[in-house]
Amino acid sequence: MSDGAAGLPPLPEMPAFEAGSVWLVGAGPGDPGLLSLLALHALRAADIVVFDALVSEEVLALARPEAAREYAGKRGGKPSPRQPDITKQLIAHAQSGRRVLRLKGGDPCLFGRGGEEALALAAAEVPFRLVPGITAALGGLAYAGIPMTDRTINSSVTFITGHKVGGEVPDAIDWAALAAGAPVLIVYMALHNLPLIAAKLTAAGLAPETPVALISKATTPAQRVLESTLGACADEADAAGIEAPCIVVIGEVVRLRQALDWTAPREARAAAAARALAARGQRAAS
Amino acid sequence: MSDGAAGLPPLPEMPAFEAGSVWLVGAGPGDPGLLSLLALHALRAADIVVFDALVSEEVLALARPEAAREYAGKRGGKPSPRQPDITKQLIAHAQSGRRVLRLKGGDPCLFGRGGEEALALAAAEVPFRLVPGITAALGGLAYAGIPMTDRTINSSVTFITGHKVGGEVPDAIDWAALAAGAPVLIVYMALHNLPLIAAKLTAAGLAPETPVALISKATTPAQRVLESTLGACADEADAAGIEAPCIVVIGEVVRLRQALDWTAPREARAAAAARALAARGQRAAS
Repeated sequence: MSDGAAGLPPLPEMPAFEAGSVWLVGAGPGDPGLLSLLALHALRAADIVVFDALVSEEVLALARPEAAREYAGKRGGKPSPRQPDITKQLIAHAQSGRRVLRLKGGDPCLFGRGGEEALALAAAEVPFRLVPGITAALGGLAYAGIPMTDRTINSSVTFITGHKVGGEVPDAIDWAALAAGAPVLIVYMALHNLPLIAAKLTAAGLAPETPVALISKATTPAQRVLESTLGACADEADAAGIEAPCIVVIGEVVRLRQALDWTAPREARAAAAARALAARGQRAAS
Repeated sequence: MSDGAAGLPPLPEMPAFEAGSVWLVGAGPGDPGLLSLLALHALRAADIVVFDALVSEEVLALARPEAAREYAGKRGGKPSPRQPDITKQLIAHAQSGRRVLRLKGGDPCLFGRGGEEALALAAAEVPFRLVPGITAALGGLAYAGIPMTDRTINSSVTFITGHKVGGEVPDAIDWAALAAGAPVLIVYMALHNLPLIAAKLTAAGLAPETPVALISKATTPAQRVLESTLGACADEADAAGIEAPCIVVIGEVVRLRQALDWTAPREARAAAAARALAARGQRAAS
């Protein structure tokens, strides 16, 4: 996309990024095309960008050249900066009068600790702003051709995290309630604990045949999608060498991928789409 | 934000918007700053923009001046184009060789019927692309200062829709499972059926004191936030004259707004933030 705008309407006015403030911004799942205009504005205005492990190179490349860059990533099970040290740094940078962009993969406040960092900023009376981002589930499902909801399948969707920072499965999850109440379940950071998660959901009543899709490195050129079932997905992910970061989609919406994978040849999709429409009593308008 | 880029890195390459194809694109919840770069690219390249009721004026204003605009909105309970007529139009526009931008508020595939429209396109062998958007929950909670997840509160979040197009509450919802398994629940299109939804959740075991926030017209200049409880929210929403579109957040994360409403004076936030940090055994680094 050209940045020149001859004959095109001007871009909207953006709020001022004040010196001495911190913007907690979601960078989206990877594709720089999924960055918001506010995030781009922040990248172009920031004095320092403090970024986490899931922010892509292509996104960081959009920061103005003079901006300092500081890595503050956390990855489960690996040595990484302690959370109190990250927030102390954010506060110190802001108090030195800089425009501090805290850039996180996906959305900052959905399994991203944005709220926790904002609490520390608020307590220190550092002004801040929360800028949402496209979370991995929204990005990954769209790029895999799986609708998150479909009127004939689900009127709710549940996002859960597959592990805590230490690596364990979170202990407060009511698997029986999830199995009963979540027709579509999207598990973040699911890969490490996938055998356990699949076993818990099966024990709680979900059929082993329930369709599952694994989406690795969502929306990046390295994205891989594996279609499987709840009973087989852990073994198949292992055999296929699926890598983190990976989200897992569990539910009947996964079957629609046959018709909606828009990266596949259109002839391949048409028959599956006609079948899906016929099954819901609609005629394909062709 | 200026579109000129003197001294700034170039914007990323965008995929070609091919003639004869349809892009199903999320416009985000209202603030044009939440539009993605891909959505902006599509607005600037489209021959026709087919938009729904929740797409803001500011977003539509970014389309290139020569683009045709066609309204195809659906609002619950009001006369509106029939879904089969909308998909027929999309197919006809594409088959006439135009670049068709189907623009929806929020995300196209989360309660947005994007998957359904894509099925019809796939069956007609019309090439399409799914471009995710920032859904109202991500935008609205961030702008209200409510984190969607907090490590000390929830490791899952559930989105449900509060009514079907005809106006009724969806019938497939297992309220008991939701009450047991959803520590944070976000209800879309909740206003009309709020008394019923609150009663169902209370009957299923959620305490009437459970904190609730209503976010009306999320991320727009007319955004209003009402903090209440599950027991009182329906009456208070009515008394306050809260208007649709409105999302409702149910769960303990709502209490963090006292500390995290970044639009409030920072002195007001600091004490609440210090209390919240103390409650979780962390010192405020000030």
